[in-house]
Amino acid sequence: MRKLMNKKSSNMIALAPNTSNKRETVCIFGTGDFGRALGHKMIQSGYPVVYGSRSTQISNLIPKGAEVMGHAEAAQKAAIIIIAIQRQHYNFLTPLAEVLRGKVLVDISNNLKLNQYPESNAEHLAQLLPGSKVVKAFNTVSAWALQSGTLDASRQVFVCGDDVEAKQMVMNIVRALGLTPLDKGSLLAAQEIENYPLQLFPMWKFPIFLSLGLTAFFFFYCVALDIIYTYIYENNNFSFFIAITIPNRVCPVMALILLALVYLPGIFAAIIQLYRGTKYRRFPDWLDKWMLCRKQLGLIALAFASLHVVFTLVTPLRAFVSWRTSKRIISQVLNNKTEPLDHTNAWLSDSYLALGILGFFLFVLLGITSLPSVSNNVNWREFRFVQSKLGYLSLILCTAHTLVYGGKWFLSPSAYKWYLPDIYILSLIIPCAVLVVKFLLIFPCVDKPLTQIRQGWERNPKYSEQSNYIINKSAV
Amino acid sequence: MRKLMNKKSSNMIALAPNTSNKRETVCIFGTGDFGRALGHKMIQSGYPVVYGSRSTQISNLIPKGAEVMGHAEAAQKAAIIIIAIQRQHYNFLTPLAEVLRGKVLVDISNNLKLNQYPESNAEHLAQLLPGSKVVKAFNTVSAWALQSGTLDASRQVFVCGDDVEAKQMVMNIVRALGLTPLDKGSLLAAQEIENYPLQLFPMWKFPIFLSLGLTAFFFFYCVALDIIYTYIYENNNFSFFIAITIPNRVCPVMALILLALVYLPGIFAAIIQLYRGTKYRRFPDWLDKWMLCRKQLGLIALAFASLHVVFTLVTPLRAFVSWRTSKRIISQVLNNKTEPLDHTNAWLSDSYLALGILGFFLFVLLGITSLPSVSNNVNWREFRFVQSKLGYLSLILCTAHTLVYGGKWFLSPSAYKWYLPDIYILSLIIPCAVLVVKFLLIFPCVDKPLTQIRQGWERNPKYSEQSNYIINKSAV
Amino acid sequence: MRKLMNKKSSNMIALAPNTSNKRETVCIFGTGDFGRALGHKMIQSGYPVVYGSRSTQISNLIPKGAEVMGHAEAAQKAAIIIIAIQRQHYNFLTPLAEVLRGKVLVDISNNLKLNQYPESNAEHLAQLLPGSKVVKAFNTVSAWALQSGTLDASRQVFVCGDDVEAKQMVMNIVRALGLTPLDKGSLLAAQEIENYPLQLFPMWKFPIFLSLGLTAFFFFYCVALDIIYTYIYENNNFSFFIAITIPNRVCPVMALILLALVYLPGIFAAIIQLYRGTKYRRFPDWLDKWMLCRKQLGLIALAFASLHVVFTLVTPLRAFVSWRTSKRIISQVLNNKTEPLDHTNAWLSDSYLALGILGFFLFVLLGITSLPSVSNNVNWREFRFVQSKLGYLSLILCTAHTLVYGGKWFLSPSAYKWYLPDIYILSLIIPCAVLVVKFLLIFPCVDKPLTQIRQGWERNPKYSEQSNYIINKSAV
Repeated sequence: MRKLMNKKSSNMIALAPNTSNKRETVCIFGTGDFGRALGHKMIQSGYPVVYGSRSTQISNLIPKGAEVMGHAEAAQKAAIIIIAIQRQHYNFLTPLAEVLRGKVLVDISNNLKLNQYPESNAEHLAQLLPGSKVVKAFNTVSAWALQSGTLDASRQVFVCGDDVEAKQMVMNIVRALGLTPLDKGSLLAAQEIENYPLQLFPMWKFPIFLSLGLTAFFFFYCVALDIIYTYIYENNNFSFFIAITIPNRVCPVMALILLALVYLPGIFAAIIQLYRGTKYRRFPDWLDKWMLCRKQLGLIALAFASLHVVFTLVTPLRAFVSWRTSKRIISQVLNNKTEPLDHTNAWLSDSYLALGILGFFLFVLLGITSLPSVSNNVNWREFRFVQSKLGYLSLILCTAHTLVYGGKWFLSPSAYKWYLPDIYILSLIIPCAVLVVKFLLIFPCVDKPLTQIRQGWERNPKYSEQSNYIINKSAV
Repeated sequence: MRKLMNKKSSNMIALAPNTSNKRETVCIFGTGDFGRALGHKMIQSGYPVVYGSRSTQISNLIPKGAEVMGHAEAAQKAAIIIIAIQRQHYNFLTPLAEVLRGKVLVDISNNLKLNQYPESNAEHLAQLLPGSKVVKAFNTVSAWALQSGTLDASRQVFVCGDDVEAKQMVMNIVRALGLTPLDKGSLLAAQEIENYPLQLFPMWKFPIFLSLGLTAFFFFYCVALDIIYTYIYENNNFSFFIAITIPNRVCPVMALILLALVYLPGIFAAIIQLYRGTKYRRFPDWLDKWMLCRKQLGLIALAFASLHVVFTLVTPLRAFVSWRTSKRIISQVLNNKTEPLDHTNAWLSDSYLALGILGFFLFVLLGITSLPSVSNNVNWREFRFVQSKLGYLSLILCTAHTLVYGGKWFLSPSAYKWYLPDIYILSLIIPCAVLVVKFLLIFPCVDKPLTQIRQGWERNPKYSEQSNYIINKSAV
Repeated sequence: MRKLMNKKSSNMIALAPNTSNKRETVCIFGTGDFGRALGHKMIQSGYPVVYGSRSTQISNLIPKGAEVMGHAEAAQKAAIIIIAIQRQHYNFLTPLAEVLRGKVLVDISNNLKLNQYPESNAEHLAQLLPGSKVVKAFNTVSAWALQSGTLDASRQVFVCGDDVEAKQMVMNIVRALGLTPLDKGSLLAAQEIENYPLQLFPMWKFPIFLSLGLTAFFFFYCVALDIIYTYIYENNNFSFFIAITIPNRVCPVMALILLALVYLPGIFAAIIQLYRGTKYRRFPDWLDKWMLCRKQLGLIALAFASLHVVFTLVTPLRAFVSWRTSKRIISQVLNNKTEPLDHTNAWLSDSYLALGILGFFLFVLLGITSLPSVSNNVNWREFRFVQSKLGYLSLILCTAHTLVYGGKWFLSPSAYKWYLPDIYILSLIIPCAVLVVKFLLIFPCVDKPLTQIRQGWERNPKYSEQSNYIINKSAV
């Protein structure tokens, strides 16, 4: 009785979209959470939906307006069948091969781990049912987001498949649901599409751990020198330095080091190519990986630089600083003397601020051009110009900023507490090394052979031929 | 005579593109403003253009190089006909049905109001001329922008239609004009495409009115307490507080409240789901709408937070502040005493600044990830991580910033002028409530059933079945 | 012997992808740098690659797994042939016309100069081999980036061609290599695609040279008035002003002038249209060009404004400023008088800061909406609202900021050293002119005819008819 009524009502509801003769029936295999969410959304968008299920009893969870029937029966009603069941149950589809012949099967499954199976779920499905046209889609969309309508991220639905028409049919459904299909080519791309939603900033992991580690090191280094040393030897309690003073020493150091680390692998690559005399041999693995995360390193460096800027600008608002200023002025008054303007000091202070501002300005420009929508709108030559020319200019300005800041303290013995150098001296090592080697590399006598090598010339063709020969031999 | 010459010259001009045999003739019905602008652009891009018009006299406005003839005659010359006439005149096309059979008709019309007609103009056209292939396009482009070439916005041309080949032909023209076609699927999408150019930030309306209202309230609250109260009871004229002091009190309050309002609907949703024991029933309408404008609320909160940062950093440059500083120092001098450093004060000042800087930093990160090009490049898991985890961390830091700022004033009676609390106390109510409830919700005993419910489990299937039953009954 | 072995090994390697029957063989003509890089990448992506070369000897540079044979022999093995040879050698392909009939030829060539040849390389190829389907692709990708895998920019591959299926085949390969194809329509687009990688910010050239010139002028103007004049007449050496003080005077002046220059061409256009009484005649060339680089002018203005903000916020950190503050306070103490708060001064200082902050805030909003991904997500009406309404509001606020800043100095004779006005007075000329004329233009008696003209109305149809007549006559 209930089922009958349900059917009737669903027919009545389904009538409205049917009259326009626009949307074709879609079949969904499986009544799990995502299958229901997708069916719900499809009914909202005017598609008649038929569920294929083992038991047709559990109809109360099924979205209103959908029918539930056996798998074979449901499959016959539609040209597109969405497979909302897990990979380990795909085998039960093989008896249905005849019914599913020629139909479009949409694989929406996800795995629990990256590269869980040797071949992707969609390819596995295509192998099980060679007569059907398998399309991978919808796996990047969340069921929760589909239902609540909050699709801020992931409006993009990656679609891939070997049959162009089947893909078009699925992409039309995707568009009708208010999502944006993105054609990723043949079914070979399914592995990548299935891995996509499992990632959590994979390219960011190494840069973030590296910077966390370095930050912790420099933080405790500063705590030791600025708070503990001062407490022991000068009996001053400056524990509140932890909040601003020390972060504002660590941030610029991190920014400068990470910015230099962005340009270091390029230096290594040039040296390796010059040494080998060819560009046709792969870089060592660590260098390859390093080069691929340069953008991330640069953006983290920019984050540290921005924090440094705000921490610095906030200086005059600090209670400690205003106390120190008052103290200095009052002591001048009490000594009844007015200091004249120290011109060297004014020059140093102004020029280190100006260098920092210009370096940060260029750094922010670099950051803006690495926004996806901006870098898609520049060509390779423009991108190289900004990232390489402006990037090096920014590194030079930031290094000069630190050098001028250090200025006269470099050689003063009081800067070496416990015989340890201040961290801004440590921070200069890598940037200066990068800049010196880069300066050597742009000398014509070095630059010319390097350019030739990068255009495909080989100093020592015999060498690579031989290695080729060895590889060939072992292949026989 | 004139017409003849016109024809000749147009033929001569048209020769150049014709020799390359690339562009097919396009016919435009209607010589209104947009029809002329489009024709002009098409001729520039090498398309021979033929206008269909009732009178062939008004040829002086027609772009040079185009021919003008009767509708039927013009339609026969081209495979694509652009219908640049208003919907209310579509009826006159029905006599031409035979001539237009099999042709591609491009509907470029717009309406004056959202959802002005029950069906879209393009669908109306398709019903009138069932033998033609109707494609909706170009309605999002402005005639002025087409002519002046300043197409900064809206290079995107939404295209939809039921015939794939007709759509392809139109998309090729769109590309040839230097615009970017965006396939929106079947003709059902026409309604949405026709509504698109009429919108003026529809999702922003509620958040903007809400924040304007709250801002006005807090502004006058502050004017009353800080200026009027001071003027009446302390006889001090601080009217210039209106320019910076009071905006800098209202902005952080607004930023904190709006940021909390971003996370409040999620809390409500969780409570409703826990209470109902299912996720398969719709949220109340107000909650749905609220959830859909969270991004906008967050961005407005970020705008207020940014203003707060700049207003704060500008503090030392204010004449009033430098006068106050001088006064404080001079009074110390005249009293001939030097105050020692107040360590508690130094701690409070530094830590509230540091908390604010970190909170703002995370807030800016949230803002950057909500840029369309960035959020398109992260998957659902990454987006959730940033928007939920980092978002809550930012809310915690900003709330702590306000709490530490308030610090010792909370219980001091002088903070309660006219028995009214200071606005920073008011600003803390919603954020603290959100954080406390969220803290309760992540307790395992609450979190576990909630996760189950969100994965599709139902505490009380009978209940939803019954409601189902009632709905079905009323449907019969 | 070597060749045989090479062949064997390549077969063995090629077996793996062949078993899956997915990727079809691709032929590459030419073993230059880019041909090898592309072949390398294709083999990595599972495509069997065959090189067509004059000599089959130089096989050691060829990526492992690829075969090398004569051109005709290689072409027969594949449906897609990538032409990795230079345009001047295309002639040698004509004898192969029979073999290449019906094949897809991918033109990947680039030129050394913009518009080097009258027709694009791809069109030239299509004319040489009319029986083949020519597709333009891959020319925007760098060989170095392909090999190193660092494809941050230019993941986009522009594809164009007259044969839709051929284009689809090439786009599938593009996707398989992990790149994003972008369909640019028919082969007519090849010229534009070939010019693309040669550009270096073409739209930015004029705005950048203009601002460099103006910046240099204002910089030396300030050096003369602030440093040299002071040195000569007041005997004060303020040479360190070069680092911050003078840049912070030049930056706001540049920002304000450039922002006004963004809105000036719109004013000119309106006046010209009003004078002519029609919108159907082209603007003079300089105005057209000016209107097309408004976005760039605006972004450079924003850069100057941002620098001005940071330079200003840094003020309290400068040694000179803290020396000046101490001096002022100490002189007050020594004179034993405390100045009362100057309310006018407090008002002026606070309101000029507040106006600047709000103007800058709106300016940043304008900048954000001109990010490609944001402006793609707003419609024409929304874009106009932001860029025109908010833009003018920002110009008004920034002009008011400068006026209030100038305040009482305008009429003081000490502001005119060497009878020259201060640069902030110079900076106000264009913005004030723009605002005054704009104010006149929104008067109903002016706005109404202008709106009519922009909607296509003509005051003097005869006039344009006559000009038409003259043009036609000269065309006969």
